Amino acid sequence: MHELERIVGAAHVEHDTVVGDIAVPGVRATLVRPASASEVAAVVAWCYANDVALVPVGGRSGLAGGAAVLQAGAVAVSLGRLTAVRSFEPQLWRMEAEAGVTTATIARLARENGLSFPPDPGAPEQSQLGGTIATNAGGPHAFKYGATGDWVTGIEAVLAPGELVRVGGPLRKDVAGYDVRALLTGSEGTLGIVTAAWLRLTPAPEAQLPVVAAYPGAAAGCAAILRVLESGSLPAALEFFDEGAMRAAGAAFPLGALRGFVVIAEADGASAEAARVRDELREALAPGAAAVHAPDDVARAVWRWRDGVSLAVAAARGAKLSEDIGVPVDRLEEAIAQTVQIGARHDLEACSWGHAGDGNLHATFLLDPADEAQRGRAGEAAQELFELALRLGGTVSGEHGIGVLKRGQLTRQWAPAAVAAQRAIKHALDPKGLLNPGKKLP
Amino acid sequence: MHELERIVGAAHVEHDTVVGDIAVPGVRATLVRPASASEVAAVVAWCYANDVALVPVGGRSGLAGGAAVLQAGAVAVSLGRLTAVRSFEPQLWRMEAEAGVTTATIARLARENGLSFPPDPGAPEQSQLGGTIATNAGGPHAFKYGATGDWVTGIEAVLAPGELVRVGGPLRKDVAGYDVRALLTGSEGTLGIVTAAWLRLTPAPEAQLPVVAAYPGAAAGCAAILRVLESGSLPAALEFFDEGAMRAAGAAFPLGALRGFVVIAEADGASAEAARVRDELREALAPGAAAVHAPDDVARAVWRWRDGVSLAVAAARGAKLSEDIGVPVDRLEEAIAQTVQIGARHDLEACSWGHAGDGNLHATFLLDPADEAQRGRAGEAAQELFELALRLGGTVSGEHGIGVLKRGQLTRQWAPAAVAAQRAIKHALDPKGLLNPGKKLP
Repeated sequence: MHELERIVGAAHVEHDTVVGDIAVPGVRATLVRPASASEVAAVVAWCYANDVALVPVGGRSGLAGGAAVLQAGAVAVSLGRLTAVRSFEPQLWRMEAEAGVTTATIARLARENGLSFPPDPGAPEQSQLGGTIATNAGGPHAFKYGATGDWVTGIEAVLAPGELVRVGGPLRKDVAGYDVRALLTGSEGTLGIVTAAWLRLTPAPEAQLPVVAAYPGAAAGCAAILRVLESGSLPAALEFFDEGAMRAAGAAFPLGALRGFVVIAEADGASAEAARVRDELREALAPGAAAVHAPDDVARAVWRWRDGVSLAVAAARGAKLSEDIGVPVDRLEEAIAQTVQIGARHDLEACSWGHAGDGNLHATFLLDPADEAQRGRAGEAAQELFELALRLGGTVSGEHGIGVLKRGQLTRQWAPAAVAAQRAIKHALDPKGLLNPGKKLP
Repeated sequence: MHELERIVGAAHVEHDTVVGDIAVPGVRATLVRPASASEVAAVVAWCYANDVALVPVGGRSGLAGGAAVLQAGAVAVSLGRLTAVRSFEPQLWRMEAEAGVTTATIARLARENGLSFPPDPGAPEQSQLGGTIATNAGGPHAFKYGATGDWVTGIEAVLAPGELVRVGGPLRKDVAGYDVRALLTGSEGTLGIVTAAWLRLTPAPEAQLPVVAAYPGAAAGCAAILRVLESGSLPAALEFFDEGAMRAAGAAFPLGALRGFVVIAEADGASAEAARVRDELREALAPGAAAVHAPDDVARAVWRWRDGVSLAVAAARGAKLSEDIGVPVDRLEEAIAQTVQIGARHDLEACSWGHAGDGNLHATFLLDPADEAQRGRAGEAAQELFELALRLGGTVSGEHGIGVLKRGQLTRQWAPAAVAAQRAIKHALDPKGLLNPGKKLP
């Protein structure tokens, strides 16, 4: 391990330490903090030559345990010192940034220059570009704008056995090779370690106008969500919060305490266009609503509240178990209702909220952290959530990834031949199986 | 080969025939026309078991020879009978269509229901969904809306050794597995044969308002293109046609004969918003322009003309050699000027046109079909185009793919380790190397 100190400097190696977003009892690792992509490559080369497992660590805001160290003696590679914005050309709508730059920094740089980097996963101050690419992180505005990968035109990454490569660049279209860029995106560090990326940006919308509607229940709320689609409006975001989620988070709603089944649709664009879409959304959301609010100048407050919903739900009982299943949008009502019923069958209070337009819900069981039995029941209930998602034609993960927490679920979702293809790709790019072992793959 | 007749019916097998988009002298193949995805799987299984090469054949509108049969005795698999639209739910913005459905059919179905399927590669009546996915086809509106792959949420494909698999579905977000959907997209039939896809659609824009501006030369025209980006407007398309392309195609321009270096920027959206953006585009394009036209109700005529530019340029001398290189948009002017100079060095008339906003140009040499020496010089000149693209930080193919015509170019563009990764992926998914051999890979 002295070789690692030579590569990154002794001050940037922590031996025998506990790292990762999930601390596994008894597992201690070596944490290294390279300062550059070439240092990352040297670290990977040393590990690969010495059969040492590698766990890339970003901002540790992941929700599937993707950065957990599972094997004692593994090397955890923090990307936190790769914080350079290598180039930023606002007039050309593009940026090249290193893996350790936070989502908030990228968003701020874009915004200060009249541009937008639309992906908006939670924890913007903590999450890092490399991690959001490795998980293909989503967020509320993915409905109109797509997830992180849709804004990445090129990736610099270290592949086994320690090679620094670049695929793509400041190009909006490139079909010369296989889409290795897309393959690395969402691969959770199991195929390579992202060290930098070229991002495309887009002109910032002049106005963001949320419309907030509260309904007496999921049936009325989900009917409203489908009416938005039928109306032919294209909202920037289309979110829902069921009655349980609003019980936990509704008191802090910026327009005053709110209860019921809540839908938030946002119109954006130039001012007049955003106002026009806002009016369309209000009309589509009105039938069956107990209340519809669409004041100006609340977008920032509404999305700040939105960002806190997960914490508010966790705070209700002290803890929670949440799964980000996805279903076709016309099955959303069923998924929401079944989540509550699955909870009830396991004697757990359940709720859900999430990205309604994408059919992506955070199906959640409230937990008392002191109650071990309850946590066991929640684990069983989560298995039923995955079965539910697949029965409805959906996915076990819409945006958080598989990590270690959902490991093995893909074998329920994909046919054996597709799972075998994934395994073959993993073996092709990581023949020794040293890149983030125990993650993503069944 | 009698087994193939048993699988698809004797009427759907043509023995000893010449197929593909490029006829290779002396190479004859067996053409089979399966009627369903399961028949495609059976054909692949038989070929894989008998070590027979497979060439998937779509609408034969590809421009890189991706459907050429290179090995005598290979089996060409036409997807032309897989024409079912398996489901179409306009109110949910989604469709599942088989590989043989034409681009025009998908676009028409969407349009008739108030929706849009934005990818608009050339030859819409001929190109088929499977082929446009296999090449990740672009088109003018890729600037705002992305290429074909951006609208594919799921793929059904036959993988070696003959397994029918589905990845994704009617879901807008899914990170459960590696992005095998994206990996197959643009893989040109070398990793599997696409049999069907789930598509997402979007509300159709109410208005499409092109702005057409003519400039005295590339310098003024490219400055205008960069001004559009700086203006913060988001055009739906941003195209250019250099003076040589306009000499060949300008006489048929729907607003009257047009010469010079021409830029077409299109505003789209709800009527008022499209008009607002149109005015912004007109303002950004005006400085240095000899003429700016922005009449209503010409979008259809302008895009029909646009679709014919390639043929008009070929007709100028009887033939052409065209390469779809891509460069960062700020290097476009240099790429356009260098294309003409490369032509001059090889005593060839050269011109270019293409997707300016994406930095994707069709760099073209005009040819007399009877002049063999000229064709030889054009081949040498094309090599210089590829070098040019890479020197400018670009790609050898922005949207047409590698096929057989650009085979080997990737080794100039990617580092050896990245090329090795591509090779490893190919070997992982097609260990016998029977899927479209001689294509895409160096």
